[in-house]
Amino acid sequence: MDCVPSIDGAWIQRRLEELAHISALTDRLWRPSYTPQEEQARCLLESWFVQAGLSPRRDAAGNLYGRTGGTGRVTLVGSHMDTVKGAGAYDGTAGILCGLAALQALLAQYGPPHTPVELVSMVEEEGSRFSDASFWGSRSILGQADPALLSCRDEEGITLARAMTDAGYSPSRLPEARRDDLARYFEVHIEQGPILEHRGVQLGIVDTITGLGTLEAEITGRADHAGTTPMDLRLDALQGAARLILQLPDLARSFRNATVTAGSFQVFPGSANVVPGRVSILVDYRAPDPRDLEQLGRKIRQAAHSLETEGFGVVTQPRMSVPPARLDKALGHLLEQCAQELGCSSMHMISGAGHDCQLFAGQVPSALLFLPCRGGRSHCPEEYAAPEDLARAARVLAAALYRLAWQHP
Amino acid sequence: MDCVPSIDGAWIQRRLEELAHISALTDRLWRPSYTPQEEQARCLLESWFVQAGLSPRRDAAGNLYGRTGGTGRVTLVGSHMDTVKGAGAYDGTAGILCGLAALQALLAQYGPPHTPVELVSMVEEEGSRFSDASFWGSRSILGQADPALLSCRDEEGITLARAMTDAGYSPSRLPEARRDDLARYFEVHIEQGPILEHRGVQLGIVDTITGLGTLEAEITGRADHAGTTPMDLRLDALQGAARLILQLPDLARSFRNATVTAGSFQVFPGSANVVPGRVSILVDYRAPDPRDLEQLGRKIRQAAHSLETEGFGVVTQPRMSVPPARLDKALGHLLEQCAQELGCSSMHMISGAGHDCQLFAGQVPSALLFLPCRGGRSHCPEEYAAPEDLARAARVLAAALYRLAWQHP
Repeated sequence: MDCVPSIDGAWIQRRLEELAHISALTDRLWRPSYTPQEEQARCLLESWFVQAGLSPRRDAAGNLYGRTGGTGRVTLVGSHMDTVKGAGAYDGTAGILCGLAALQALLAQYGPPHTPVELVSMVEEEGSRFSDASFWGSRSILGQADPALLSCRDEEGITLARAMTDAGYSPSRLPEARRDDLARYFEVHIEQGPILEHRGVQLGIVDTITGLGTLEAEITGRADHAGTTPMDLRLDALQGAARLILQLPDLARSFRNATVTAGSFQVFPGSANVVPGRVSILVDYRAPDPRDLEQLGRKIRQAAHSLETEGFGVVTQPRMSVPPARLDKALGHLLEQCAQELGCSSMHMISGAGHDCQLFAGQVPSALLFLPCRGGRSHCPEEYAAPEDLARAARVLAAALYRLAWQHP
Repeated sequence: MDCVPSIDGAWIQRRLEELAHISALTDRLWRPSYTPQEEQARCLLESWFVQAGLSPRRDAAGNLYGRTGGTGRVTLVGSHMDTVKGAGAYDGTAGILCGLAALQALLAQYGPPHTPVELVSMVEEEGSRFSDASFWGSRSILGQADPALLSCRDEEGITLARAMTDAGYSPSRLPEARRDDLARYFEVHIEQGPILEHRGVQLGIVDTITGLGTLEAEITGRADHAGTTPMDLRLDALQGAARLILQLPDLARSFRNATVTAGSFQVFPGSANVVPGRVSILVDYRAPDPRDLEQLGRKIRQAAHSLETEGFGVVTQPRMSVPPARLDKALGHLLEQCAQELGCSSMHMISGAGHDCQLFAGQVPSALLFLPCRGGRSHCPEEYAAPEDLARAARVLAAALYRLAWQHP
């Protein structure tokens, strides 16, 4: 595909590293929404948008846009700029910088497109400051930002409304952030998992963003003295919980592309010389098929409650449920074609993590392109994507944008 | 046995309840050593000692004695008056009050004995204020109080030496607390376990205080994103740890009267959406036979390290080891005989918990008499012993003391 300008992956990587130096913490990266550090990073991004030839603009939620020329419905490209606590330099921002590199190269070579392309850097996807308000930026764009969430608070007790106002944005004007002029949405993201690296494939075309449920399970036995209570007179909650834990992988494997994880597992009272009386588990389960997701949740609940026959008390409580999102087949096919023409290997895959893209998918044709990250590591300082992988994702994106906005009027 | 005066269990229980109102916390019972509350309780005890006809005395460590008349080597009877945090009213003090009731009745009916009997209320058995200094009172009496421990600190950073001094006791005169004139030691204690109640037996004659080892085991896997890491590419530390946990009961059952407990079990990083990367377990294992104890510890370590074949990192570290203590057969036989003559059922048993008695057993013939506690509950507000059970233990103790100190010159 001679039409696609070459892109320098090292250029992208240098800018990601520059952004990663702007942190609210001194010892590790955390860029929470509506903080001075996030504003500083946004200003830096804005200067790069301008250098690339994009016209910048901020909306009432704090999302930063950069727009090409052109008329008609907008092709939106973007990702988020907030991070988890103790983050790496690639999650979110890699998508923004790949989009920026693609647009900069296309504008330099071809000038403004027929139909406008906008790059967006969104706020608060991770919910690392306001845990109830994850996807706040994309929800605002899609008119789905629930005003009730404006009163949720960060760890220091500051409300979302106050944080937005203090940062110069406007809770009352939030409805103005809504876009009704979008034609489609593209997002580039690091995979945050090991599959591409494991299979030696260069790019992932995401078909589905998996559905997610969380279930709280509390197993109650009887706390007893560790020295004076014979083994056969115990009702050790940890023994029950361990049997449940060992069933989870097989439950996951009985559904296609499902996962089950018990990352939060707490034993009470937690003293070495007291038989565990209670175990509290938060089970995270995911499946790309909505019926599988529902059935998987039911099977986990059943497995937990089966401990009741051994005398344990079991209480289960669903906590969160996010349905799977199907991405656009035609856009996925376009990305696949562009990858092939540029000599990049690609595979169709499922995203096990949530992304802004899943919100857009409910309203406009949307596509998500994954690039490999080393060891599948993400949300940690070791997070890393190679310059050539960043460049490949940016070039494939550029090829797709060229076809949609420059080639076709 | 007509020689043994009747004893009022309700009298013992009322005094235990009175003591339990003296606490360093407002919402639950905690009587830590060398606090104003502990001193207040000691003064109350002292007044009861005097009323019973005992001559009171405190040693440099803060142990409170009450002595009968008589000459020659001393029969010591006692237990501890400190408590765990959130204690019940019976652990420790039930032994002191049973001893007091026994001596009061014997003195009232028979006057002073031929050989002296002393009642002792000891400090800091639980180590609930100074965790490294458990058995501080009994160690002081036996000349085993390590002066290095004087610099250990409570949660507020106060050293043991400072706490003793502030309470009016004397770290520098600690060697004077040592007793070389003891003939034997008796302790009455609630069982702190369910065996007597479960078997419907009224008293327990303890033959052995079990040995205790603690082992720290750390299982390391790999922390990964819960959504993006397929089940087959995980190294979930909780899966490994759960397999280890389920082996522990069978390991315990393969040794006589052994227990294994994993009361402290922590999962890291502990987020619902992160595959557990590390589990830290503190294993408490106990066995009354010293070779069994050693072998049990080795088998637990082996079971933990066998997880290495599945790719887990395993580090094990022994933390504490207390050998089993054998109590005196002749004194145990005497208690059994007295119980029988008073029409009380009794059984020989092993103590799974540690007691001051195990320290004395290394130096003088020592005996430990258990009475049932409801549901085997202890170290909790629900801890309870019935008045008739308290009275039975006190009468059996009185009968043994009568034979040893009143009857035999």
